[in-house]
Amino acid sequence: MNETIPPNAIREALDRIRPHIHRTPVLTSRTLDAEAGNSVFLKCENFQRAGAFKFRGACNAVSQLTAEERRRGVVTHSSGNHAQALALAARLFGTACRVVMPTNAPAVKRQATESYGATIVPCEPTLEARLATVERVIAETGAVHIPPYDDDRIIAGQGTAALELLEDVPELDCILAPVGGGGLLSGTALAAQLAAKPPAVIGCEPAGADDAHRSFYAGVRVERATPRTIADGLRTTLGVRNFAIIRARVRDIVLVTEEEIVEAMRFVWERMKIVIEPSSAVAVAPALFRKLKVSDQKIGVIVSGGNVDARALFERLRQGSA
Amino acid sequence: MNETIPPNAIREALDRIRPHIHRTPVLTSRTLDAEAGNSVFLKCENFQRAGAFKFRGACNAVSQLTAEERRRGVVTHSSGNHAQALALAARLFGTACRVVMPTNAPAVKRQATESYGATIVPCEPTLEARLATVERVIAETGAVHIPPYDDDRIIAGQGTAALELLEDVPELDCILAPVGGGGLLSGTALAAQLAAKPPAVIGCEPAGADDAHRSFYAGVRVERATPRTIADGLRTTLGVRNFAIIRARVRDIVLVTEEEIVEAMRFVWERMKIVIEPSSAVAVAPALFRKLKVSDQKIGVIVSGGNVDARALFERLRQGSA
Repeated sequence: MNETIPPNAIREALDRIRPHIHRTPVLTSRTLDAEAGNSVFLKCENFQRAGAFKFRGACNAVSQLTAEERRRGVVTHSSGNHAQALALAARLFGTACRVVMPTNAPAVKRQATESYGATIVPCEPTLEARLATVERVIAETGAVHIPPYDDDRIIAGQGTAALELLEDVPELDCILAPVGGGGLLSGTALAAQLAAKPPAVIGCEPAGADDAHRSFYAGVRVERATPRTIADGLRTTLGVRNFAIIRARVRDIVLVTEEEIVEAMRFVWERMKIVIEPSSAVAVAPALFRKLKVSDQKIGVIVSGGNVDARALFERLRQGSA
Repeated sequence: MNETIPPNAIREALDRIRPHIHRTPVLTSRTLDAEAGNSVFLKCENFQRAGAFKFRGACNAVSQLTAEERRRGVVTHSSGNHAQALALAARLFGTACRVVMPTNAPAVKRQATESYGATIVPCEPTLEARLATVERVIAETGAVHIPPYDDDRIIAGQGTAALELLEDVPELDCILAPVGGGGLLSGTALAAQLAAKPPAVIGCEPAGADDAHRSFYAGVRVERATPRTIADGLRTTLGVRNFAIIRARVRDIVLVTEEEIVEAMRFVWERMKIVIEPSSAVAVAPALFRKLKVSDQKIGVIVSGGNVDARALFERLRQGSA
């Protein structure tokens, strides 16, 4: 499959969604720069609505529905940030949202999605059951399917984070983005083309879920049977449309260990005082641990989200404080 | 004792320290406003240098040392944020910093203070030993004592956070600040006087460490033998100078439970994606849980810091990810 989206689609998406999204801040840290040996600019999508960049794509997709489609509603399958993002976007545009979610999904994810007004449609925890359930919902309701990443509207929306980052810091040498399904990375790679001097775009992936890295170097999309990583947002398999763009536009995909993910997450929490999720730390780690072999450059990092289940920590605090 | 500082000292302190401090952001949240029934403005001193408002006071004190005093250095006793703040301020102004710290202080606090270049002087964990050790350091080195809160230079410095908040949001109806030793609350009360229409200033204190509340209502400074609260920054006893200002300028001191502290901290972490320490949550809680009995007002909150020891959480993550 070849690329299907012109880079200018990112600019159109940003014009479309700007009234609805947060313009997230770009944060810097002297300590991070000193550790990294470069100037690092964090585009903080943890401050995005619903807590992750996913709202950009969802908003771009839902805002383009026709009046007739809005009457029928949208459907997706996800137990992660896409579910919450789509639920919020659907509520803002006054359309119904159904989310197919496996019965073993954590209650906290179900509740968060329901809190935005979506209806959860439970299914068995297999890919077949998920797809069959989505099909059934479509057959019954006529709902429009909004997939989490393998979709032109979603890719264009996700690219708007990098476009905003380039508006704030025009002369970046490179941009790091995590890669799971590839929605964010492919959108970022397209957005980079809109810069006067396009920065290199580099994907960041857990070594324990390295299907994008393998696919990138094999030149064909390969799957990995059992991804093992704390970065739960990156366990998904690279999408077809996403791979076509990544292959054509991305400079490299670097791998990080689980230890590096946790250490990078801890560094950002402790030193920069912002809550980021493990998937975000995957893109911070290559800068923090000097894995890029460059110095005195301007490195942008898309911090993808901040949805962490910190219940264990707060449970401990509550008990300790008694 | 009567008040010893004119409100204008806060403005002078801000002029003095502005080149050295971070101008911290004021954050808002639709969800917080909805929960609180008011418009809430968080002045985010967790993003201040060294992770807390304490750097303001330390910077104001150290920047006023004479050349002769700088040659002799500074000394304090603290195992908390004041130690780190003074160490950083001393380094910036090229003077030596000695911090008297009890031998049972957590290693992480010692290391953080040392990382800013201070020398730790260990002492037995009693107030007598602390004071005697400070006296000994002064006798041996001629160092200038910079106490953590009962000091005019410190009070004026801490008040600059509220002054910046009022520059950004001039028409606040009230400002909430946590109270431990009273440096921040007394400085905030003075800063409020500089507003065209001075907001009410309200102290926030853990019910398990309520010496400021008791002192405020008794009209005399009373101590509490065994403070018990998760908010480690607020276990100190109210200072003499601080009480004089608080008595004269503060509207009320409200108490919060340990449960409310943990819930407020969790709310801010999970919904606003910023790391705040328990002492900060003490000032968020009265707004979040509608303890002020007001609505549709503009409420400022001084979020005092973000220095949390989250090692347990990250240890768990690291193990869980293996």
